Amino acid sequence: MLFLVECYNSGMEKTEQVNRITSREEDFSQWYQDVVSAADLAEHSGVRGAMIIKPYGYALWENIQRILDQKIKETGHKNAYFPLFIPESYLKREAEHVEGFSPELAVVTHAGGEKLDEPLVVRPTSETIIYATFSKWIQSWRDLPLLINQWANVVRWEMRPRLFLRTTEFLWQEGHTAHATEEEAEQETRKMLGVYQSLAEEYLAMPVIPGQKTEAEKFAGALRTYSIEAMMQDGKALQAGTSHNLGQNFAKVFDVKYADRNGVMQYVWQTSWGVSTRLIGGIVLTHSDNAGLVLPPNIAPIKVIIIPIWRDESSREIVLREATALQESLRDIGIVDLDDRDNVSAGVKFNEWEKKGVPIRIEIGPRDIEQGQVVLVRRDTGEKQTVVRDNVHRVIAELLNQIQRDLYECAKQRLVERSFITDDYVEFKKYIDQGGFVYSHWCGSESCEKAINAETKATIRCIPFDRSVPDGKCLKCGTSASQQVVFAKSY
Amino acid sequence: MLFLVECYNSGMEKTEQVNRITSREEDFSQWYQDVVSAADLAEHSGVRGAMIIKPYGYALWENIQRILDQKIKETGHKNAYFPLFIPESYLKREAEHVEGFSPELAVVTHAGGEKLDEPLVVRPTSETIIYATFSKWIQSWRDLPLLINQWANVVRWEMRPRLFLRTTEFLWQEGHTAHATEEEAEQETRKMLGVYQSLAEEYLAMPVIPGQKTEAEKFAGALRTYSIEAMMQDGKALQAGTSHNLGQNFAKVFDVKYADRNGVMQYVWQTSWGVSTRLIGGIVLTHSDNAGLVLPPNIAPIKVIIIPIWRDESSREIVLREATALQESLRDIGIVDLDDRDNVSAGVKFNEWEKKGVPIRIEIGPRDIEQGQVVLVRRDTGEKQTVVRDNVHRVIAELLNQIQRDLYECAKQRLVERSFITDDYVEFKKYIDQGGFVYSHWCGSESCEKAINAETKATIRCIPFDRSVPDGKCLKCGTSASQQVVFAKSY
Repeated sequence: MLFLVECYNSGMEKTEQVNRITSREEDFSQWYQDVVSAADLAEHSGVRGAMIIKPYGYALWENIQRILDQKIKETGHKNAYFPLFIPESYLKREAEHVEGFSPELAVVTHAGGEKLDEPLVVRPTSETIIYATFSKWIQSWRDLPLLINQWANVVRWEMRPRLFLRTTEFLWQEGHTAHATEEEAEQETRKMLGVYQSLAEEYLAMPVIPGQKTEAEKFAGALRTYSIEAMMQDGKALQAGTSHNLGQNFAKVFDVKYADRNGVMQYVWQTSWGVSTRLIGGIVLTHSDNAGLVLPPNIAPIKVIIIPIWRDESSREIVLREATALQESLRDIGIVDLDDRDNVSAGVKFNEWEKKGVPIRIEIGPRDIEQGQVVLVRRDTGEKQTVVRDNVHRVIAELLNQIQRDLYECAKQRLVERSFITDDYVEFKKYIDQGGFVYSHWCGSESCEKAINAETKATIRCIPFDRSVPDGKCLKCGTSASQQVVFAKSY
Repeated sequence: MLFLVECYNSGMEKTEQVNRITSREEDFSQWYQDVVSAADLAEHSGVRGAMIIKPYGYALWENIQRILDQKIKETGHKNAYFPLFIPESYLKREAEHVEGFSPELAVVTHAGGEKLDEPLVVRPTSETIIYATFSKWIQSWRDLPLLINQWANVVRWEMRPRLFLRTTEFLWQEGHTAHATEEEAEQETRKMLGVYQSLAEEYLAMPVIPGQKTEAEKFAGALRTYSIEAMMQDGKALQAGTSHNLGQNFAKVFDVKYADRNGVMQYVWQTSWGVSTRLIGGIVLTHSDNAGLVLPPNIAPIKVIIIPIWRDESSREIVLREATALQESLRDIGIVDLDDRDNVSAGVKFNEWEKKGVPIRIEIGPRDIEQGQVVLVRRDTGEKQTVVRDNVHRVIAELLNQIQRDLYECAKQRLVERSFITDDYVEFKKYIDQGGFVYSHWCGSESCEKAINAETKATIRCIPFDRSVPDGKCLKCGTSASQQVVFAKSY
């Protein structure tokens, strides 16, 4: 099994440490769990499949929320909040929708000490309850577009839960919009996918392939689903965000109509789109190494950790004073923490903050103070440099940008190196087995799609946008095929 | 029925408008619903007792969240997230707790297409699942204090739902902490009540009485509960926030122990505290008038609304240009909106923004532009003033502060004027009937407390802090009583 495009030979992993993290090469799946656990991001709860998001993991989610919420508002959307419980009858109105979600539902049958007349479903997604409401809110063309977003928890019953990646309950945002024309709805669907792409690439340093889902893979009830697909370190795909053009499917069953400029009643055109706490799993699987979590500076809850190093009481005082002044001088950079614990050795501290993926470590000891310098260590590469005290602010600001760019480039390089093009099924299976994205021609039939999946476990991740390639022959059945799609195993 | 301490003779209510808001004097309860509806804050959903928080109402909640989240973090707490579902067995471990919440629980019995082995309760509050986790997180005195907060939705089945005030599902934050000593836990409990008081008074302009709940009124499972109690315009009390000293009750059933400095295992001392979307109901009931919502500037989603007034196309262009420049010049004040709709008359706009409680309205027309001035109108008093264009920024900044202070003073004045002291039961009943807070001596027995409630519908809202009064005789039984408590009808 081919493993891991290592962009850097991480020096981190050589520092003396009690490393309880299984290596990626040994057991990738266990490595993921160990990294999540060692970084204190989350843990399993007493409820099957439901996780506890620990403070450090939640701080990551708050950063994602803050960035994305701003983008959602800048694009004209307003936040609102709809009920957790959905009457079962609402869900049943859209046939494909209920069929898609039925196996995953959690159902409230009793409340207030009595059996309910109608069971209530705990929302797996909120199209039905939100559109039942939109039908009351929308009267005329003046009410359009209606651009709503909700930050909420949702529940989808999971048989094989994994922290962040697949949990019974997860946190997400779900956007829901209604438009006067099909064209506007399509523009919105693509615009929000673009917002997700910029979140993923510019903040999470996670390059993605945007494209359209196949009929078999689209959202239950949608006309078309678009997604962004990221490649994890094992070459598997992670669907990092989806945006659905719902057409008029829900509008018709929930009677969401408006009077147009001529007073004629028309059904609206709708979209919905979401990203979730799964993104945190994506960050872990994209950047981390055998020493633990690696975080892109643009999303890191702590950007810089200062570790003061002293030998005795008198040096302790001097070092702590200098370290505190240093922290103060870096305040405008973002969160800069000082680890002044006196019951833990500097070595143990190095190890702990490595596991937590803090982008830059500053070491400062008595000799550094004498010489008017500090030592900076990059988490991603392990690279050390000694920096004159007066230059620290500038160097750190630049270094954070550099780390952000390098993490993106490293992930991008992996994506490129492990993307293959072939219409030869034997070669295809080899690439899929070793982990990677494979671009192949596909005839468009669901039977070929299913057969490939059954034989290789790969799915069509998406039909990438704007990919003009000559016609070819379907990977599976050999008939002529005009489109080239991306296959991969996925999370 | 005595009604409403009107601090101002609101000119607002005289502006020409189609006022679909029932007056307070006519039907206070209907007035509340009408104000919430006319301001577009929230509406009922298809699920009994569950509300839909509309964008304008949610923006209010986001402001409360932002302010309180900052205070919670400044006092050393970290946010985390725990599961929505709680195994029934967890809830049953603390006897008082389960007894208190049982009648209100919603229960998931089926999930993933199967009947669950153990029913899952939708959290009514999260003490049990959080402390089951704390027992794993806490090992030694070095792990203490553990200071956690969660922003979440909770469900308590409601038979008589009212928007914001009593809903089956509501949004809130719940703080959960563990401490080494009883004293520290008590300090924390009081400190967070203080945080709630400052939120209520400084931002919501809602004066409150802080105090301790009686045994009968305390949180199910707590040692002591403290609350802040606000007076609404009808003289009823609204419990606006609670903070519980849980003692070691939960620590003992969930085995939350730590090794102290001598290595001896000890149970932790715990607290929990919360405020919810109910605060929005409190804002409405405290400040609004017969023309609709009135919002304190410190919490208003829109602080200033600019209404351009034009007669024809040419004046429209000039006025809009000037209005846009004005909006731009006020940017640092907060959200200043410009209502440039051309299908709605200025009068209708005045009315709409009054209903939404925007603190200041700016009117700007061709004549104002010629004379280099604008007209400012206060939402709370209806007071108008003409201000020279160059002074607008300064005047608005001052006026917003003034409105904030005045709304607080108005509510404070009402609280003072409608607070009575008596130990005479006949007089007591009269005050309670007409609406207000009554300070009376109480012997401390639950039987007197219950009898008073049965006969007058009043409950003991709290035993106010630091109220030193001479001993007296119990309002109900006449035996000697050392404490004076606050009675009122409540929401």
